[in-house]
Amino acid sequence: MQATADTQQRILDSARELFFARSYADVGVADICEHAGVKKGSFYHFYPSKQALTLAVLDAHFVDIKEKLIDQAFAEDLPPLARMARFAEMAYQFQKQVSLETGHVLGCPFGNLSTELSTQDELIRERIQQSFARLQTLLSGVLKTAQAGGEVAPEVDASATAQAMLAYFEGVLLMAKNQNNPELIRHLLPAMVQIRINQS
Amino acid sequence: MQATADTQQRILDSARELFFARSYADVGVADICEHAGVKKGSFYHFYPSKQALTLAVLDAHFVDIKEKLIDQAFAEDLPPLARMARFAEMAYQFQKQVSLETGHVLGCPFGNLSTELSTQDELIRERIQQSFARLQTLLSGVLKTAQAGGEVAPEVDASATAQAMLAYFEGVLLMAKNQNNPELIRHLLPAMVQIRINQS
Repeated sequence: MQATADTQQRILDSARELFFARSYADVGVADICEHAGVKKGSFYHFYPSKQALTLAVLDAHFVDIKEKLIDQAFAEDLPPLARMARFAEMAYQFQKQVSLETGHVLGCPFGNLSTELSTQDELIRERIQQSFARLQTLLSGVLKTAQAGGEVAPEVDASATAQAMLAYFEGVLLMAKNQNNPELIRHLLPAMVQIRINQS
Repeated sequence: MQATADTQQRILDSARELFFARSYADVGVADICEHAGVKKGSFYHFYPSKQALTLAVLDAHFVDIKEKLIDQAFAEDLPPLARMARFAEMAYQFQKQVSLETGHVLGCPFGNLSTELSTQDELIRERIQQSFARLQTLLSGVLKTAQAGGEVAPEVDASATAQAMLAYFEGVLLMAKNQNNPELIRHLLPAMVQIRINQS
């Protein structure tokens, strides 16, 4: 049983690493199997398709981002807007570390797969949309706490503002990946706390 | 000569349309030739590679965006920040039109190709970086005019702020493509004028 669970985990980890470093289309099942050190039959025992594996990859990314970034950045030891600033700094540190390890700023795994596949794979598009919606809810929670404490004005639409902040986050990561420069994140991302969408 | 110029243009137009609607990897030279109604030999007469064609596609997108969006949005009949607001509205109208025609919000051709290829094709990554830099310069020019007229504070770094606004633009288009909802652009993009990066 242990060997089986390990095999499945190796396939999942390999797909995450390769999709993130390259792209969905550029990484085939054969590449994933080779990287994971498993045979194709083993792959299809665990995942009926590359699409099914990709949905599992997206879920694994969400768990990681939630545990390693969001939960730590949004811990309640700081006032709400300072948590956002910590989120920006932690996102920078993560991208810088990845850049040091791989030679490339890799951006956001959700944003990357979304721009590549949104017109081509409806299941993957929807799963990413759900992941973004969950991140938006977490950001929106911080904004509502900021409103309760008077840091953010009551007329602000917390949900739409969270969506706008998440869009800015995605855009900054896209530009940093394009320039292959993690310092751009440190320079631009803190401005995410400036954005406000008022209730209409 | 006319037939030759037409053939080259058809190849270029087909590649633009197909890459924009799908992705770089999903569209092969055979797909482009079929869509353009030309033979492969004809393709390679004009473009030595798919990469070379893609560089031409990026240049053609830049010319179009400059002429059909930027030059009109930034015309001097409005105050500077109102030009930015017109830019946001025109970007929404364009994406909505594309969505009506194709059934999909397609996002930004630079952003799409950049997220897909930045770690994989250095020439394409650089050409997109140059295109973004030119768009940033155009935005920065509007911000400097706004500073000269008192609409934007003198301590604002026009160049960095233009970069941040462009990042937000890319992020909003990415989210709208992910949700396949052009209305998100109308709701979120006008907030681009709120962002400020001060001189450090």
